[in-house]
Amino acid sequence: MEAADLRVRSLGACRTESPLGALVTRRGTTEHYVDENDRVLFDDTLAMLAARDGEPPSFEPGGPRRQIYFDPAKTRVGIVTCGGLCPGLNDVIRGLVLELTSHYGVRKILGFRHGYQGLVARHGHDVVELTPDGVEYINEQGGTILGTSRGNQDPAEIVDCLDQLGVNILFVIGGDGSMRGAQRIAREIAERDRRIAVVGVPKTIDNDIPFIGHSFGFQTAFGKATESIRAAHTEAKAQPGGIGLVQLMGRHSGFIACYAALATNDADYVLIPEVPVDVDDFLPHLRRRVRDRGHALVVVAEGAGQSYLSPNGTDASGNTRLGDFGVYLRRRILDDFAAAAEEVNLKYIDPSYVIRSVPANPYDSVYCLRLAQAAVHAAMAGRTEMVVGTWRSRFVHVPIPVAVSTRNQVDPSGDLWMSVLEATGQPTTFEPSTVTS
Amino acid sequence: MEAADLRVRSLGACRTESPLGALVTRRGTTEHYVDENDRVLFDDTLAMLAARDGEPPSFEPGGPRRQIYFDPAKTRVGIVTCGGLCPGLNDVIRGLVLELTSHYGVRKILGFRHGYQGLVARHGHDVVELTPDGVEYINEQGGTILGTSRGNQDPAEIVDCLDQLGVNILFVIGGDGSMRGAQRIAREIAERDRRIAVVGVPKTIDNDIPFIGHSFGFQTAFGKATESIRAAHTEAKAQPGGIGLVQLMGRHSGFIACYAALATNDADYVLIPEVPVDVDDFLPHLRRRVRDRGHALVVVAEGAGQSYLSPNGTDASGNTRLGDFGVYLRRRILDDFAAAAEEVNLKYIDPSYVIRSVPANPYDSVYCLRLAQAAVHAAMAGRTEMVVGTWRSRFVHVPIPVAVSTRNQVDPSGDLWMSVLEATGQPTTFEPSTVTS
Amino acid sequence: MEAADLRVRSLGACRTESPLGALVTRRGTTEHYVDENDRVLFDDTLAMLAARDGEPPSFEPGGPRRQIYFDPAKTRVGIVTCGGLCPGLNDVIRGLVLELTSHYGVRKILGFRHGYQGLVARHGHDVVELTPDGVEYINEQGGTILGTSRGNQDPAEIVDCLDQLGVNILFVIGGDGSMRGAQRIAREIAERDRRIAVVGVPKTIDNDIPFIGHSFGFQTAFGKATESIRAAHTEAKAQPGGIGLVQLMGRHSGFIACYAALATNDADYVLIPEVPVDVDDFLPHLRRRVRDRGHALVVVAEGAGQSYLSPNGTDASGNTRLGDFGVYLRRRILDDFAAAAEEVNLKYIDPSYVIRSVPANPYDSVYCLRLAQAAVHAAMAGRTEMVVGTWRSRFVHVPIPVAVSTRNQVDPSGDLWMSVLEATGQPTTFEPSTVTS
Amino acid sequence: MEAADLRVRSLGACRTESPLGALVTRRGTTEHYVDENDRVLFDDTLAMLAARDGEPPSFEPGGPRRQIYFDPAKTRVGIVTCGGLCPGLNDVIRGLVLELTSHYGVRKILGFRHGYQGLVARHGHDVVELTPDGVEYINEQGGTILGTSRGNQDPAEIVDCLDQLGVNILFVIGGDGSMRGAQRIAREIAERDRRIAVVGVPKTIDNDIPFIGHSFGFQTAFGKATESIRAAHTEAKAQPGGIGLVQLMGRHSGFIACYAALATNDADYVLIPEVPVDVDDFLPHLRRRVRDRGHALVVVAEGAGQSYLSPNGTDASGNTRLGDFGVYLRRRILDDFAAAAEEVNLKYIDPSYVIRSVPANPYDSVYCLRLAQAAVHAAMAGRTEMVVGTWRSRFVHVPIPVAVSTRNQVDPSGDLWMSVLEATGQPTTFEPSTVTS
Repeated sequence: MEAADLRVRSLGACRTESPLGALVTRRGTTEHYVDENDRVLFDDTLAMLAARDGEPPSFEPGGPRRQIYFDPAKTRVGIVTCGGLCPGLNDVIRGLVLELTSHYGVRKILGFRHGYQGLVARHGHDVVELTPDGVEYINEQGGTILGTSRGNQDPAEIVDCLDQLGVNILFVIGGDGSMRGAQRIAREIAERDRRIAVVGVPKTIDNDIPFIGHSFGFQTAFGKATESIRAAHTEAKAQPGGIGLVQLMGRHSGFIACYAALATNDADYVLIPEVPVDVDDFLPHLRRRVRDRGHALVVVAEGAGQSYLSPNGTDASGNTRLGDFGVYLRRRILDDFAAAAEEVNLKYIDPSYVIRSVPANPYDSVYCLRLAQAAVHAAMAGRTEMVVGTWRSRFVHVPIPVAVSTRNQVDPSGDLWMSVLEATGQPTTFEPSTVTS
Repeated sequence: MEAADLRVRSLGACRTESPLGALVTRRGTTEHYVDENDRVLFDDTLAMLAARDGEPPSFEPGGPRRQIYFDPAKTRVGIVTCGGLCPGLNDVIRGLVLELTSHYGVRKILGFRHGYQGLVARHGHDVVELTPDGVEYINEQGGTILGTSRGNQDPAEIVDCLDQLGVNILFVIGGDGSMRGAQRIAREIAERDRRIAVVGVPKTIDNDIPFIGHSFGFQTAFGKATESIRAAHTEAKAQPGGIGLVQLMGRHSGFIACYAALATNDADYVLIPEVPVDVDDFLPHLRRRVRDRGHALVVVAEGAGQSYLSPNGTDASGNTRLGDFGVYLRRRILDDFAAAAEEVNLKYIDPSYVIRSVPANPYDSVYCLRLAQAAVHAAMAGRTEMVVGTWRSRFVHVPIPVAVSTRNQVDPSGDLWMSVLEATGQPTTFEPSTVTS
Repeated sequence: MEAADLRVRSLGACRTESPLGALVTRRGTTEHYVDENDRVLFDDTLAMLAARDGEPPSFEPGGPRRQIYFDPAKTRVGIVTCGGLCPGLNDVIRGLVLELTSHYGVRKILGFRHGYQGLVARHGHDVVELTPDGVEYINEQGGTILGTSRGNQDPAEIVDCLDQLGVNILFVIGGDGSMRGAQRIAREIAERDRRIAVVGVPKTIDNDIPFIGHSFGFQTAFGKATESIRAAHTEAKAQPGGIGLVQLMGRHSGFIACYAALATNDADYVLIPEVPVDVDDFLPHLRRRVRDRGHALVVVAEGAGQSYLSPNGTDASGNTRLGDFGVYLRRRILDDFAAAAEEVNLKYIDPSYVIRSVPANPYDSVYCLRLAQAAVHAAMAGRTEMVVGTWRSRFVHVPIPVAVSTRNQVDPSGDLWMSVLEATGQPTTFEPSTVTS
Repeated sequence: MEAADLRVRSLGACRTESPLGALVTRRGTTEHYVDENDRVLFDDTLAMLAARDGEPPSFEPGGPRRQIYFDPAKTRVGIVTCGGLCPGLNDVIRGLVLELTSHYGVRKILGFRHGYQGLVARHGHDVVELTPDGVEYINEQGGTILGTSRGNQDPAEIVDCLDQLGVNILFVIGGDGSMRGAQRIAREIAERDRRIAVVGVPKTIDNDIPFIGHSFGFQTAFGKATESIRAAHTEAKAQPGGIGLVQLMGRHSGFIACYAALATNDADYVLIPEVPVDVDDFLPHLRRRVRDRGHALVVVAEGAGQSYLSPNGTDASGNTRLGDFGVYLRRRILDDFAAAAEEVNLKYIDPSYVIRSVPANPYDSVYCLRLAQAAVHAAMAGRTEMVVGTWRSRFVHVPIPVAVSTRNQVDPSGDLWMSVLEATGQPTTFEPSTVTS
């Protein structure tokens, strides 16, 4: 990462006095405003820093600015939620609406229905007006009151829609695909030289977007997933030869599987996309474990072991459709025990959507609210083509190109995976010839 | 039901003074003892009663007796849990142990491991001693600390084992198959003229055992199942053409599906084993509902629509293996929408074992404790070949033959199904030619 | 109870065909309608029945009638919630609205705000219109969307209001005081010879209204209360000389205390209003228990031990204000241990309103929905001055005078209290001179 | 902070090969070991870094070392939990035991009962042996299986005890007072020149210990506290003139109040110890809010507004006993509304111990496990007089003097408090003469 990469685009100079002034200067102080020279260091360690020449890279911190770009009284705002569900979507929507209205005095907020489809006339979705009263209780519901859909739409049509409705700020809550879409929208806006800010709040149930700490809803999701692990463990211990096999979300990143497994600290094996698995190596291990302990508990991320499965094309978001490793593994385990003539009682659990459609837990609710506040501050200050994130416990502005440049994954050489290895006692990897059963 | 059917077998006359005496007579009263002449009426309505000639049938009420059969100091007790898991198993075990030790002063309680297998030497399971300290926290865990297994074992071998260990009372916590096994054990005991009481606590996640009100764990299970329904509803509403399809336990009885659907009152269709479904009639209904409302929510019990599936033999408990109607229906729905070229986003959720392996909720915990207390009182008073149940809010003794004589099912002409029909608005039945889409 | 007492008043003959007909007769059957001759027996036991001469008393069962009294298209309905909060109020409101609109086709439903105040013009509360859309998610919130207030209002003013708004059916969701108010309203209506039905859904967090099984919200409330008991137990066990003291709701009836204590089965003492307590007898018991076990857990209902407290007048509902026994007992315990120079670490927990303002659990949600359905069927059939209840697992119609004639209390000679005594091991009563410490 | 302050004491050179070797080098790599030259930067921002001359301060990272100090086969370990309860104590104990036994092969682990008392013979507490089987389910219980007590004990007596039992490593789980005690123990050990490591896991329900991110159990605690806020909000909205007043833990730091209030985003006022409050200024504000909106919700940390209360001495831990601001404020509010002759229905809720005695939520369970792993690695490598903490998402070693040098508090000029001000809309401070009601 270079210093230049982390610079955030802005629509122009901020010349309007922030209406927050009355709030934050009551004691004659201005301490709540962000100092324009403040920058959050990118590097973590002395070694990283030492390796730099030139200016160390750093993020622009989030928060309210003394001068803002948009005149709140004249600002019209649009909000859209895209992609799969995630706990906290309604908290973010509610947070945006309350912050915009209570603190900036914005009077017109439009909700687009069913993702980017809602910004394209021919899909025929209505546009809803969002008010503080209308969002009063939505945080107690899972899902998104705006609905969602997968896939991007033509940026030109979308900017036509924004133009027609007079929207000045568009908040996009969505995943990396949707952020790429947001970037194209911002580019289209720039080409037309419109004064419209596009600010994203990154959403990913799998925690695979970088520079945002844990993504919102992640704690809720893995917390819910622990219930399946607990159930599988209970089932596995109850019957002779019991095996609990739990498949959890995680297409390319195994964070949910790792955290959910650590939370109960009962799993014997955790299999994730980041660490290749040789099933022929794994099976005798498992059989031995069941023989030794009477039961075993296996947690797999859906994206693990994909080399064993044939690809199924792509979905509307452009994601490669992955095969179902859990189902494959169940079959292999049953066959293996049958071949060895050993008793097995395998219970397979896949909580699927249950972990992503629940309301946010209190931590995620706080986090969603604060992300929403930071997004509003950034947008009102004219920032665009960026997402809000967190770095070193600070809210920061992340340019979209940086946010989509890599995928956040479990580092097989890092602390988290080490914790999993220590907690499960499994070998660092399953490879041919490591076990003779 | 005839009056004679409801008579409970007893090992003999009760001649030992109950040690509970000190407790219940402190104010010189004896009010807590059950009056030996008390009987709980079987019939509910005036009409039923009017139709009787002869003595109206009635149950023996549960509760402590002034005179008991077994001398606590010399009594050895065995406990076994059989069949599938169910919330509350550990509460029942804990309740039995605490009641036996604290109130009757029984000093030796054995836990048999992995169901009836634990009573047959060649399976090689150890026998564990159960103490108040050892069961202190088990109610906070799901499952059963004793383990379980499916299927019955040879009654002769079991009675050999009881003889050898000097067990006087055997508590069996299990389903209807296990109760039939308990009856065979009791008959074997009678033939050998042993003084061993066999008392059951009926367990069924599906609520399909009669004369026990809601079976223990049922409220916990359907309560947990509502989470899947809520998730499916949230998913269905989020996307255009959204359908939530939830499959819940219920092989022959649709109670879980009915109650879980009523709890959120959001389902559009509930399909249960008791009411036949014509899928060709159902599909156009569903399609129209999605067209009208934008989404739909379907709840199916696993045992519904079995006519569409080929049987898969029987499991170790002798239960017919049922096919997976939810999976079949998913395929049919997707094909049907595809054929009609209508957009559909179907989300399928099957919480499976998660709803049965959780700890009991507070209501079920109370119920399990009280069932355990009633079972102990019955056994100490020498009752045998019976299970504890509830009738008209009273704990009662139910002869095993009566308890296994019928299956408790949702009555398609009864109040509960009427509530479901009113709540969903679905037709009373899906039959050919009722809809033209 | 005499047979005549259980007769329910009706506004007149039912001559309108029920619109439910299409639903329930689809297969040419009429099985879902209630048979007008059906009656639910009042008596439980053979002995009770044998002691009768004349017709045994019985309830009218709830459910849909083939002929109804009101023409749905012209019916205007009012709903009011009164008194303290209780889990499930919003479920009942939602159930009434959905049943009235979806099944009977009623088009005008008014919600009165803040209890009976909302029916009296000078209080200045607005009247809100209730629609299926408006109540879609209210069951996920605690409390009541209509608001509430304590106390009755002038029946004449209320009937004036109903007249003016053209209301034909008034549903009152409230406690025994509110039901007495509803009865006065019904009498005023009768005197004016108006065709207005008044049907109640009885609400009581304390489960102290008879003939309704567990009152709606009761299971949710005691379930929530178990968390405080668990916390107090955890605290008590952690420190030397630990005592956990939990005060729970229950002014005149100790059901919440009993059930919450049984749910964890850890309490050493449960003190309820129905069983007098001599604190001077109790204290040395407690001290000995702490000495023997290292800790103790005490659960008190707020209405216990009132003889030790001076009365504080009455509240707006006319309820006697009770003193705070838990706070009194805490002081006495601390003084007693101090006087005995024994170490004590007492943790006092009073969850207060937290147990009553939560959303209903799934069981209570089902129950609220079914009570609402039964209330709608009764009102549409012209029944008045009655509440819906349950008896022997059937929904029944209970005349208001019967419903308010007694208070449901824990019977010190009954099964429930016996269970508590067995679970705690406490003596049947604390009286002078029973212990010498 | 200077670089030298962050250096961690070590008992001596590490010369024993870590038994983790087999695990981490399976593929011939050593990536999981911590690089001995790795250091985690202390500073967050470019400005901080620029202001340094000399070496920038940095923490030693946590994690496994290739060479360790203690020979596992001969190592005896002691564990003690001190001070008030906190969610996750049992997770930490379980994590320590499983990590020590499974990964290092330590065979002797002693649990001291009731805090430092358990290390002093005259208190007469037994010492318990901790094994993997014994801790299998303890993470599902709140509290600590070891018990706890407040206050320190004589370091000399404690080191005598460690000597006598041959303990080589002592893990102390406790608050800042206990960490000061641990420091004195480490100094006593150093003076006697013993080879005993003392490693702390910092515990604080209030999140007031620095350099550990959120303290373990904090998320669970504030999450539980949101239930009280939700209840108070529900009550406040139900009745005319409704006020919900919630008092939460937080003696000197208002983190729980801030986070719990943000989680529901419904509070109108949050009062914390860090921001002085003038009650005479606050009351007219509150009255106006109730008049405008019909209700209000106030959240106070117990340590707020202490200037209005007289001190109550100190407790056994040496903490100043604080008065009960919530109770004081309730009285003032009621008097104020009475004086103004305005209707008020105030509901006061204090969840007290309920928020701290629950089991850890999944996030905290993961965090506790990882803290335990890091503590074990540090101790086995001979580190002493330190605690494990987190900094910039890395586990780090923090010298005890640094960990107890300051108190973590809500910064009235920082991001968190700004979020609260934005969410509540309350003024930055309540001072005389700011409002004329």
